[in-house]
Amino acid sequence: MNYPETIRNLIECFKKLPGIGEKTAERLALSTLYMDDDVLKLFSLSLNNIKTKIKRCEICNNFSEENVCSICKDNTRKKDTICVVEEPKNINLFEKMGSYYGLYHVLDGLISPLDGVNPEDINISSLIDRVKKNKINEIIIAVKPSIEGETTALYITKILEGTNVKVTKIAHGIPLGADMDYIDSLTLELALEDRKEVA
Amino acid sequence: MNYPETIRNLIECFKKLPGIGEKTAERLALSTLYMDDDVLKLFSLSLNNIKTKIKRCEICNNFSEENVCSICKDNTRKKDTICVVEEPKNINLFEKMGSYYGLYHVLDGLISPLDGVNPEDINISSLIDRVKKNKINEIIIAVKPSIEGETTALYITKILEGTNVKVTKIAHGIPLGADMDYIDSLTLELALEDRKEVA
Repeated sequence: MNYPETIRNLIECFKKLPGIGEKTAERLALSTLYMDDDVLKLFSLSLNNIKTKIKRCEICNNFSEENVCSICKDNTRKKDTICVVEEPKNINLFEKMGSYYGLYHVLDGLISPLDGVNPEDINISSLIDRVKKNKINEIIIAVKPSIEGETTALYITKILEGTNVKVTKIAHGIPLGADMDYIDSLTLELALEDRKEVA
Repeated sequence: MNYPETIRNLIECFKKLPGIGEKTAERLALSTLYMDDDVLKLFSLSLNNIKTKIKRCEICNNFSEENVCSICKDNTRKKDTICVVEEPKNINLFEKMGSYYGLYHVLDGLISPLDGVNPEDINISSLIDRVKKNKINEIIIAVKPSIEGETTALYITKILEGTNVKVTKIAHGIPLGADMDYIDSLTLELALEDRKEVA
């Protein structure tokens, strides 16, 4: 690589991003030379701050810059319904859809004994705490339809057995094996509508 | 978009890069949350410095952190041959190839009267200066085979007429490994014209 050090470093950094290879990293790094100064400043600053500024919400474990995220703080939302998702970014899918007004809970993983991920390794206990401390009517489990997802859904249902909480699961309609990232809002909405009680 | 501000900003910045859409920008921005601190720091710093640190070489107009680039400084290179390219990144292609030992000259564009790009808008005069001031034997024109490329090549040849400098152009033809089925007529015509005796 024949570029000056700053460009070489930038190429290496771009290469660390998922799905970015040598050629693309080179193209992206060089394109920053032609970016607006303001954008470049914001880009640099955001990268510098991202890890320190972004915390997890104390209540639902969503990304947040404050202790409690904007959704948990929002008093117009239905506080008696919690949608359980695997990752913080899944929340964005639901919010984009725009027809869910309850709260969320981010598990940060799914139960997968084969990979050594047990119930205590993901945020299930904090979900149980929320159910105990608040008046929750329904837990909607919205994790991907896989063995791990099903196991996690079943586990949560089992744990909440005997309480008054209804545990539901978003409907199939989402193709098996699909990645939640690539589900369009309409499919997601249908799946939300057709949710059914776990066993 | 439901993310905290820092993440939203970062997504917007990634979207400004060429070929990066909404979904990819989101994926890239979120992935930075899981990057090593060192990488993130270097990433931020490089972006911050890129425009101030990267200058153009006074001689050949290549990217450089100093006034003269590493290639122009290198005394082991053949100083009597200049390869003329359109953009600084083209130099990297030649350097990767590893069998060219001359110098370079970056035009920063090609003559294109239709787009309002005239010879004085690109770095041709500095090339002529170099030819006048140094003992140059050969100018190799290595720009893309397009109307603009041909015009630029012809213009440089015209200007250098009467000097002792040999002006050459890299060969156009069929790339190695190409399927003959997919070669366009014009390329084939050029390849046929430039045919040479099999040793």
